[in-house]
Amino acid sequence: MKTDDNNIIRPTLPEPTLRRLPWYLAYVTRLKHDNVEFVSSTQIAKEISVDASQIAKDLSFLSIKGKTRIGYEVAQLEQELTDFLGFKQGHNAFMIGVGSLGGALIQDSGLIQYGLNIVAGFDINPKLVGKSINGVPIFDIAQLAEQQRIYQASIAILAVPVESAQNVTNQIVDAGLKAIWNFTPSRIRTDNRIVVQNTSIYAHLALMYNRMSVNGEK
Amino acid sequence: MKTDDNNIIRPTLPEPTLRRLPWYLAYVTRLKHDNVEFVSSTQIAKEISVDASQIAKDLSFLSIKGKTRIGYEVAQLEQELTDFLGFKQGHNAFMIGVGSLGGALIQDSGLIQYGLNIVAGFDINPKLVGKSINGVPIFDIAQLAEQQRIYQASIAILAVPVESAQNVTNQIVDAGLKAIWNFTPSRIRTDNRIVVQNTSIYAHLALMYNRMSVNGEK
Repeated sequence: MKTDDNNIIRPTLPEPTLRRLPWYLAYVTRLKHDNVEFVSSTQIAKEISVDASQIAKDLSFLSIKGKTRIGYEVAQLEQELTDFLGFKQGHNAFMIGVGSLGGALIQDSGLIQYGLNIVAGFDINPKLVGKSINGVPIFDIAQLAEQQRIYQASIAILAVPVESAQNVTNQIVDAGLKAIWNFTPSRIRTDNRIVVQNTSIYAHLALMYNRMSVNGEK
Repeated sequence: MKTDDNNIIRPTLPEPTLRRLPWYLAYVTRLKHDNVEFVSSTQIAKEISVDASQIAKDLSFLSIKGKTRIGYEVAQLEQELTDFLGFKQGHNAFMIGVGSLGGALIQDSGLIQYGLNIVAGFDINPKLVGKSINGVPIFDIAQLAEQQRIYQASIAILAVPVESAQNVTNQIVDAGLKAIWNFTPSRIRTDNRIVVQNTSIYAHLALMYNRMSVNGEK
């Protein structure tokens, strides 16, 4: 994670903390749903299998304080975590590659709940270009730069075949988007101003299969 | 990763190696598509930004040898990686929760290419139960154990709301499935015979948003 001591306003979190915050959010969301009013770091620790002192430390990055013996107010903690994680703020995104996975993700309304607003899709398939999916218009990939001037998207969701991942990445960078959420199993090269988040779901399958075969042979 | 020196047949890979193998596969798939015949670890290193000696070490777990000065045969390397990663072998899976994300994943034909065969879906929504999506029948979650006796699925893909993640996990464990691919942002508790693979795509969004805000403030 990059830091710049001169003009960072938001604190730069350790990445492990940032990875744990969504777990806490998932848990307090459940507690809120069950009408629970307060939760202690000890309770969270028991549920999540993370050390209570680590949880207190993680939550100290938020502008929320637990009360002695009572703990954190659930509704307030949920609100703070949601804000802090950027899920309330809208981010416009392009879906690059509207094949099987890309088309599926356009239909996942969960993404908008987490602040991701897919405003347009891009593909090379003439059967898709000019259509729309779930109200999202699909353009030819050649129109990327042109449409970016209109939509001003910040995030490109990359769901193209591995063969085209790098070429399309170059087009995304040239069009001036700020971040790439890479769903392909490819490693992509960009310049270092671009944020790349890899979510290679098929690679996770390989990890799972391997663990299963090890378990199965015991 | 668990090991058992007495009766492991397949070598237990270091997890970092296992995470890199899909990157190599993605790259050699592209090379094969471009009709390239041979590739050296130096070339792969340049493309993937991993040290060439590390790549040679990773690939030494496979039963394939590179030739001096020529490197690895692309078609053979692709075949070996695909086999090794378990993508050729079919794994029957249940989709647990056929809401937005679950319904989307059922429609992702990419999963079957990577060896994951979704044979049935489960939900509590009466509008879905009894229907089918993409030829996949949707059952009431109460029928999980009964349908498992018929389908003998090994993997449950968990895509339910966070509030129900743990309850449903308990049902999956009781029904005798061997692995859970957890797409919820919840941490789930199971007994240690169950393989859990977390792929919390919404948590990855938080990581990306945070990096973007740090970049933006520079």
